[in-house]
Amino acid sequence: MLKLYFAPGTCALASHIALEEAGAAYTTERLDFKANQQNSPEYLAINPKGRVPSLVTDRGVLTETPAMLAFIAQSFPQANLAPLDDAFAFARAQAFNSYLCSTVHVAHAHKMRGARWATEESSFADMKRKVPQTVGACFALIERDMLKGPWVMGEQYTICDPYLYTIAGWLEGDGVDLATLPKVADHRKRMSERPAVRKVLAEEQG
Amino acid sequence: MLKLYFAPGTCALASHIALEEAGAAYTTERLDFKANQQNSPEYLAINPKGRVPSLVTDRGVLTETPAMLAFIAQSFPQANLAPLDDAFAFARAQAFNSYLCSTVHVAHAHKMRGARWATEESSFADMKRKVPQTVGACFALIERDMLKGPWVMGEQYTICDPYLYTIAGWLEGDGVDLATLPKVADHRKRMSERPAVRKVLAEEQG
Repeated sequence: MLKLYFAPGTCALASHIALEEAGAAYTTERLDFKANQQNSPEYLAINPKGRVPSLVTDRGVLTETPAMLAFIAQSFPQANLAPLDDAFAFARAQAFNSYLCSTVHVAHAHKMRGARWATEESSFADMKRKVPQTVGACFALIERDMLKGPWVMGEQYTICDPYLYTIAGWLEGDGVDLATLPKVADHRKRMSERPAVRKVLAEEQG
Repeated sequence: MLKLYFAPGTCALASHIALEEAGAAYTTERLDFKANQQNSPEYLAINPKGRVPSLVTDRGVLTETPAMLAFIAQSFPQANLAPLDDAFAFARAQAFNSYLCSTVHVAHAHKMRGARWATEESSFADMKRKVPQTVGACFALIERDMLKGPWVMGEQYTICDPYLYTIAGWLEGDGVDLATLPKVADHRKRMSERPAVRKVLAEEQG
């Protein structure tokens, strides 16, 4: 049995949706970020990075969304969530997820998490002001070059889709106009209609 | 035939070493960052992100170090560069590489690349001042919890090793004292003695 540690509104949503789409047997454990539960001794024993998501398996704990998504796809091959038998196609899916993780999510994080990388209030404000531009530029590239449609990799729904859906859910808050991103907007709508997504959102927001 | 686009001193070194360790047939193409070649129209046609590394294959271009490293391991299974038949162990290796990419490299980038996320000189200086602390904290975690030894994943040399070696090569420049990181220092020494690493360094620095 797998157990996913998550907090609402975070990138853990991507792995949560993927587990649901995979038909995995799993439970969830919600962390209260307002109470700083992610830095409690109990949670740091599970994930010393003090972040979500974490996936507890019978062999140990996994972290890092791109790695967890690939693990879910490989562990439930019948769900067909990644091109597992084609190293090139698998690498393209992984490159998309790595870009979301290391560039897009990082750009977004400069809005509220400036203290990770600086110390002055003036720097935090400066970082925050640039977020619409940096996140907007990332999504302009996704819209133009990366999102094939209807799903990220084309006709096949993959582990890239819940991850894009999760990060794209932050666009309005980041000051990016979704009207400039018709393919991303269509993807979000299409995702929001999937039963797995509805079920997971109801649980996370409940 | 594979072609790797790289620039000296960048994270492209990790993929370069991995290609060499894999015994791959590949060529390289050096970009001159001082001449801003990574943003030339010719290169942006290959990689619209304007970054290195890029790996040109006969099926298209791959980007993003963690994805490229997994691709190299899967394409040359006889080199045994990742636990390909064990989804959990593979995910642990991928999680390590994802952490290097999205947290450690990002922390390092705030030293010289502050303009990615802010606009004011005072913010750049503030970010720069924090780099020894942020990169130091990442490597303290790697030293304590993640680097099993002698290689990252334990007895087996994997795609995690050239990536760690690459990022650890920036520690002195980032103001982190290697004397506080004996396992990382031992790993760097052990890596620097590998024929593949010597050959690649000679080419990149030549």
